[in-house]
Amino acid sequence: MRIIVIGGVAAGTKAAAKAHRVDPNHEIIIYQDEDEVSYSACGLPYVISGVIIDEHKLIIRQPKDFAKEGIKVFTHHRVINIDKAKQQITVRNLENNTEEVVDYDRLLLATGSSPIVPNIKGITLKGVLTLRNFSDLDRFKTLLNTMLLNKAVIIGAGYIGLELAESFHELNIKTIIIEKAARILPRFDPEMAQPVHDHLLENQVELILGDGLAELHGENGRVATIETESGKMIPADLVVIAIGVKPNVELAKAASIELGTTGAIAVDSRMETRTPGIFAAGDCCETVNRITGTPIWMPLGDIANLQGRVAGENVSGGNAHFPGVFGTAIFKTFKLTVAITGLSEQAAQKSGFETVSIVMKGTDRARYYPGRQEFSLKLIANRKDGRLLGAQVVGSGNVDKMIDIVATALLGKLTCADLENADLAYSPPFSPVLSTIIVAAGILKSKMAYTPRGHGCEK
Amino acid sequence: MRIIVIGGVAAGTKAAAKAHRVDPNHEIIIYQDEDEVSYSACGLPYVISGVIIDEHKLIIRQPKDFAKEGIKVFTHHRVINIDKAKQQITVRNLENNTEEVVDYDRLLLATGSSPIVPNIKGITLKGVLTLRNFSDLDRFKTLLNTMLLNKAVIIGAGYIGLELAESFHELNIKTIIIEKAARILPRFDPEMAQPVHDHLLENQVELILGDGLAELHGENGRVATIETESGKMIPADLVVIAIGVKPNVELAKAASIELGTTGAIAVDSRMETRTPGIFAAGDCCETVNRITGTPIWMPLGDIANLQGRVAGENVSGGNAHFPGVFGTAIFKTFKLTVAITGLSEQAAQKSGFETVSIVMKGTDRARYYPGRQEFSLKLIANRKDGRLLGAQVVGSGNVDKMIDIVATALLGKLTCADLENADLAYSPPFSPVLSTIIVAAGILKSKMAYTPRGHGCEK
Repeated sequence: MRIIVIGGVAAGTKAAAKAHRVDPNHEIIIYQDEDEVSYSACGLPYVISGVIIDEHKLIIRQPKDFAKEGIKVFTHHRVINIDKAKQQITVRNLENNTEEVVDYDRLLLATGSSPIVPNIKGITLKGVLTLRNFSDLDRFKTLLNTMLLNKAVIIGAGYIGLELAESFHELNIKTIIIEKAARILPRFDPEMAQPVHDHLLENQVELILGDGLAELHGENGRVATIETESGKMIPADLVVIAIGVKPNVELAKAASIELGTTGAIAVDSRMETRTPGIFAAGDCCETVNRITGTPIWMPLGDIANLQGRVAGENVSGGNAHFPGVFGTAIFKTFKLTVAITGLSEQAAQKSGFETVSIVMKGTDRARYYPGRQEFSLKLIANRKDGRLLGAQVVGSGNVDKMIDIVATALLGKLTCADLENADLAYSPPFSPVLSTIIVAAGILKSKMAYTPRGHGCEK
Repeated sequence: MRIIVIGGVAAGTKAAAKAHRVDPNHEIIIYQDEDEVSYSACGLPYVISGVIIDEHKLIIRQPKDFAKEGIKVFTHHRVINIDKAKQQITVRNLENNTEEVVDYDRLLLATGSSPIVPNIKGITLKGVLTLRNFSDLDRFKTLLNTMLLNKAVIIGAGYIGLELAESFHELNIKTIIIEKAARILPRFDPEMAQPVHDHLLENQVELILGDGLAELHGENGRVATIETESGKMIPADLVVIAIGVKPNVELAKAASIELGTTGAIAVDSRMETRTPGIFAAGDCCETVNRITGTPIWMPLGDIANLQGRVAGENVSGGNAHFPGVFGTAIFKTFKLTVAITGLSEQAAQKSGFETVSIVMKGTDRARYYPGRQEFSLKLIANRKDGRLLGAQVVGSGNVDKMIDIVATALLGKLTCADLENADLAYSPPFSPVLSTIIVAAGILKSKMAYTPRGHGCEK
């Protein structure tokens, strides 16, 4: 059986490796249109800041590593057509521009996602960049090595934008972030996004909110000034477009492989598209929000790996299931760690939940233990039955531990009453005697018990 | 209603505060036989090492803090008798040796635990210490301040013994640990205890295993030499008895308040003893192992706080339940963090489970992210249904996060198949793209799926 995998970053390579392990007799071919396969795109901002010196460390496996297992990898090969009826793909060799038609038995789409780039005047000027892959990184490095950059403008206050703001600060580049929404981090509740907003300002990052990119003005083919929708003119040596990503679904669409309501490829829990025998995994496909049961598009590296594992097993004849996501995400900007799992309170209410929530300060060690750091935690539950709906944590210290405890609690469909008596690891260097999560869960529970139902949302 | 609380460290003060919050009209009295109430005994080893400079920081609340809420605290007062029929206690003022009989409506025993001290020759010599409370700490400090100590012997390789070994190392005191069992950390599986053993040796701690304390020989009233059961003679300036603790149940026993099979006071999930109206919480009482359903005695500070909260609510007329424990514990010795939750594989097999397990190396960051640290993780599941039974983690990095994820998974009765698709927080500074826990759970699942049942234990 011949399995063709289209795309070789996270989901594609993970799936190929898994498919091979499940049945080494299958012929497995990966087509990848970039120079590299199997790399961590999430590490790119840290190469720019210099935290990671050698960018090649981001590459997990080389084509030759796959070859050893009998998995064929073709880089600089772009699949340009899928013929479902004939079970054939057309692939173009980008080096010599030749095309070839190849038969497949099973197909796996792992075409990923791409930065959204607005179609505005000046967008092709030099100095206007996105950050998604190694080619982007090369452009960044060329720019950083050949010019003295003083002023950067980042369009979009998402994770990449905020990570890059820190990277630019490390490089002594004055940074302005322009965000079309009225506030940063719209997935977070306002009171949890605010400390991040404040922290950016404290670190000399300028924020322009409620304004968008209208046009880019150049000098000698290089970007020089940004014009915003409100008419502001902002000088810049460097503009990064980080307003979000979109799933790469052109190939699927052209082949009438069905998309879902999110615009990404629709798959079942086996990661199979609505065309039997064709699977999808990673950023190009949608998944299910495990709390609301509704489709969600969650283009993150860890999810791509999880889905790749499932798709790889099934494409090879197995029967694994991917149950969906809770939307867990974490990133670092300057000294703050910012994390979320499950629904924000706003999202929960939009989904029809009557919520109860608590925001409190927490800490990562016993009160008296040196080196203690603080964070702010918001915990949200369903008022009706106390079931946890989500958490947001912002600050220093073990923010990641707090969010992973809640992410695991969501997996177990736990209530705040359950979590109140969690048996978590305590010793002065690792936690206060009662973990902040336990204290928060206890307060949530008491809010439920002593408040009659049906009186609207309590904060 | 008058509520009397006997003991004022963790469980007693937590319960008193909670009882007051539930109903501020109750009269609440705490009797405590020590100088201090409401302190963190878990911080004591760090005072000795100098990590914590000011020991008073271990004190969470003073009697005057309780007085503000109307909770009366009597230090240096020892309750010496309980008359269940008359609902009276007899309390002795240790300052003037007077006794008083006091009526109660509800009674809460929070008498804690004490170090086990063997009744051997020389045990009362100067320089022979335990470490449990502030009086012990004073004795330590006096010794450290008045003598040049070169050689310490710690009897017992439990948590306190291993924490103190690090403290002594910081103070340049050569340390020998004598442990009666054939290996250290008997709650851990042998392959997980071994790296701790090795790490102690690397840090110049000498281990004598399978040998016990027979007699202490002195010079001028001070300890000078330890004689072991096998006849070894070991010179020492300082001997710490750390072979374990026992519940303080003499008062309960004398009053015919029933003890459980572990020897600690028996309580129901409401923390009520078998004598209605008398509650117990903390180290003096037993609880339930939530995996096996059997009684377990788990004298730890965080559990005392959790139980105190429940007992405090109920003693005040509430109806809270404490569901039991998973035996989660963590400690640090030198550069290693050592943590466990649930059952070890040996304990699981003793409890009748057919187990499947995996031991693997893990890391706390993306492979390419600087500052990455490593640990070893063991994950254990029930072969029958894949339900997780426990984990042990030893190493550096976020060992505490790994163990808390599993502790929360145990709370949710999750299987390795559930955990394999956990949606944990990923970003290069915080985790590899697939958390070690997820990878371990996936391997466990595959071990279950491809191995027929009933073929004995697979490792």
